[in-house]
Amino acid sequence: MNKTDKILIIGAGLCGSLLALRLAQRGYKVELYESRPDLRKVDISSGRSINLALSDRGFKALRLCGVEEKAREICIPMFGRLMHDKAGNTFASNYSGRENEYINSISRGDLNALLLNEAEKHKNVNIYFNKKCKNVDLENNVAYFKDYKTKEEFSIKATVIFGADGAGSSLRKSYYLEKKFLFSYAQNYLNHGYKELEIPADKTGKHQISNQHLHIWPRGDFMLIALPNLDGSFTVTLFLSYNEGEFNFENLTTEEKITQFFKQEFPDALALIPDIKEEFLNNPTGALGTVKCSPWSYQNKTVLLGDAAHAIVPFYGQGMNASFEDVTVFDEILNQLENSLEVYSWKSVFKAYEKARKKDTDAIADLAIDNFYEMRDHVANPIFKEKRKIEMDLEKTFPTQYFSKYSLVTFNENIGYNTAMKKGRAQDKALLNLIADNEVHTHLNMTKNELKVILEKVKTETDNILKEDKIAGL
Amino acid sequence: MNKTDKILIIGAGLCGSLLALRLAQRGYKVELYESRPDLRKVDISSGRSINLALSDRGFKALRLCGVEEKAREICIPMFGRLMHDKAGNTFASNYSGRENEYINSISRGDLNALLLNEAEKHKNVNIYFNKKCKNVDLENNVAYFKDYKTKEEFSIKATVIFGADGAGSSLRKSYYLEKKFLFSYAQNYLNHGYKELEIPADKTGKHQISNQHLHIWPRGDFMLIALPNLDGSFTVTLFLSYNEGEFNFENLTTEEKITQFFKQEFPDALALIPDIKEEFLNNPTGALGTVKCSPWSYQNKTVLLGDAAHAIVPFYGQGMNASFEDVTVFDEILNQLENSLEVYSWKSVFKAYEKARKKDTDAIADLAIDNFYEMRDHVANPIFKEKRKIEMDLEKTFPTQYFSKYSLVTFNENIGYNTAMKKGRAQDKALLNLIADNEVHTHLNMTKNELKVILEKVKTETDNILKEDKIAGL
Repeated sequence: MNKTDKILIIGAGLCGSLLALRLAQRGYKVELYESRPDLRKVDISSGRSINLALSDRGFKALRLCGVEEKAREICIPMFGRLMHDKAGNTFASNYSGRENEYINSISRGDLNALLLNEAEKHKNVNIYFNKKCKNVDLENNVAYFKDYKTKEEFSIKATVIFGADGAGSSLRKSYYLEKKFLFSYAQNYLNHGYKELEIPADKTGKHQISNQHLHIWPRGDFMLIALPNLDGSFTVTLFLSYNEGEFNFENLTTEEKITQFFKQEFPDALALIPDIKEEFLNNPTGALGTVKCSPWSYQNKTVLLGDAAHAIVPFYGQGMNASFEDVTVFDEILNQLENSLEVYSWKSVFKAYEKARKKDTDAIADLAIDNFYEMRDHVANPIFKEKRKIEMDLEKTFPTQYFSKYSLVTFNENIGYNTAMKKGRAQDKALLNLIADNEVHTHLNMTKNELKVILEKVKTETDNILKEDKIAGL
Repeated sequence: MNKTDKILIIGAGLCGSLLALRLAQRGYKVELYESRPDLRKVDISSGRSINLALSDRGFKALRLCGVEEKAREICIPMFGRLMHDKAGNTFASNYSGRENEYINSISRGDLNALLLNEAEKHKNVNIYFNKKCKNVDLENNVAYFKDYKTKEEFSIKATVIFGADGAGSSLRKSYYLEKKFLFSYAQNYLNHGYKELEIPADKTGKHQISNQHLHIWPRGDFMLIALPNLDGSFTVTLFLSYNEGEFNFENLTTEEKITQFFKQEFPDALALIPDIKEEFLNNPTGALGTVKCSPWSYQNKTVLLGDAAHAIVPFYGQGMNASFEDVTVFDEILNQLENSLEVYSWKSVFKAYEKARKKDTDAIADLAIDNFYEMRDHVANPIFKEKRKIEMDLEKTFPTQYFSKYSLVTFNENIGYNTAMKKGRAQDKALLNLIADNEVHTHLNMTKNELKVILEKVKTETDNILKEDKIAGL
């Protein structure tokens, strides 16, 4: 492998454009093909994932590529969840007891435009829009495209092809259909879909509810969430079953029923969504799926990155962060091999990358499913509320000693997702059982000594859980 | 739905022929189509899964269809594992401490022939061979076939279509490709493949090693097993990585290397396999995959059963038993709905069937993967040996009170796989940790009182583990 290799990246979304930028910075020649129009010129949002949560793993990758500060300029910090009950009461729960640990609402379009602009500054990057990859001839390393504007079909042969073409990846589909190797592949859908709605800005362009929180209306079997946008609006997302329960996407087909549902379940949100009926009936219902697969690469020819390799449900706010972290890890592997004395090839890069990365993307996929249940249900459950309160106190009082699962996953970019998951799950189990067994108690003004006792109990019990699992071979 | 409905079953393997038999017994008109030739007339074995383990869940289904006794006549009981070390020493480990709990080696072909013969006795069953289903038009309920002999292509429209066409199911592929609904689908391969070899009978037609055991040569990263056949031979299966470790399927390509591998790792087995080189080089290397999917059915038209819905790896000896149990559960659902006062349809049968069954087939898939690691590795591990010894003692001494995970899964056909898995895993974890913490001890002649103390400790610890998992939401 060398710098004159022709690199084709399929997909100029968030992952593909960051990857193009990084490979260009490393001196590679990059051709970047995108099926949609240039989002800097055409509005292509259509009621789907308008804003996203950006946090420390994402920033680490952006920092690597020199664009962290520019991204921070278009971020809205969210310091915690704000839960809304049916009576309109709210209850805040911070994401961390440490200051400076928060997540950020960011516009998918604005961030993608930023990355495209940065990539385009490099002479060794060419970007093409409206060119849809149909399939890839794996053996000959040729990608087949169709131009959406001219309807012309054409093919491109490259030294290596990166599939950064998202959850519906055409490269991944070719892996599945060509059967050139044993391809482990899973697509798993939740029985819930999602629909995006909008809380507009007030008349002065301001946010109508707190813009420092991610708002949640947890209702057990379904929930509503809202993230702030820079223009004063909120993007609201309803997560609801397709066909189960009293209200579901299949039976919410009339204006009357939609209004009845929101009046009954989300009256305070309903008051803020003027176009509810129109938006509900016109905006698409999106599916919530997890994709896992292996191997990600074929010989020294092709490799999958981002959602194409590991699409996840959105409930940990980590989808984009995980895809950006792919670029960080891929870059680290290139550094390692460049600095080693051994001869290396694209094949060895791809293998080393998957070996380093796969366990972590599997973990964040599972964590995101966990959080689906936690957000819908547990955040309104007394024992989980008690746990969060203790965790906030521990993080505030012992900021270098205690890290909740959420903190490990979201704010500790130098710990892999898999390690964060194992440690975090054991810690959650320890704390929940200590609370259930009345072995820890909280009151309004916990002293440092009281918290120290809890911290030690949690540590001991967590270690014990991890030890017992290990002995059982888990 | 009524008895004049035209029922098409794709696949006349073990599951399809038992299903045909049962539906015929219930009075339905059944057309059964099979891609391979009639195995009663042509030898179609080709070094793949010649014999299988039949146990209580399988017998329950065979009993339902009135063919249990005929099947028992062609069974060879295996009372335990017989482990072989490199020096040729053997170590026996029974499957149960209770008498009358054992598994059986049975020829796939003989059992399949028995089921075809029984099905054919019913006038309302027609069986067709050499007819390969290519795909199914889901909306119109039409299956497309090709006749392997005449090369003719034809289609069949039926009221309902059952896909019992195995791990490579064409009906399931149509679910995936037609995208008529959100189809959750996973195919996961182990990095190990398998190859079948043979230990022939001795000159008098007798078995050369114990025919009362399932033989295992556990070697950590790979293993050999052997199951007895009625003709005095053993079918031997090597499970080995495709490309990892010193020896693997990719590098075992010469007679020298094959012999070197067996001499080093399995000298006692090598002495019994005269045609090792020829068989190794000519027999196919099979893949080991798990398939999970959902939904299994489409409207009131099609449904998947057996391996087509849930293929599993062979390490729990439950693949055929799980497929037969599908027929038991499907039959129970038909009984329930026939006896209810409500109007019901094939759609409601299919939905109720999947709801009752899916958690159990998911569980046996996971249990089979667990056992891959246990058989390769743990059976030769001191702490696991100690656990098995205690379990045998407990089952022998308290036959109505203690059931190991293996017993729950294999010999307790009225407990679902999912319940068996949860209880069994917690019990294993309890016992392994009690041993590791020196809280239980064994010696050669345990008294009943000593065992009673262990039994109570295991029960308490198991309940505790289940309680703690529940509090943690696991």
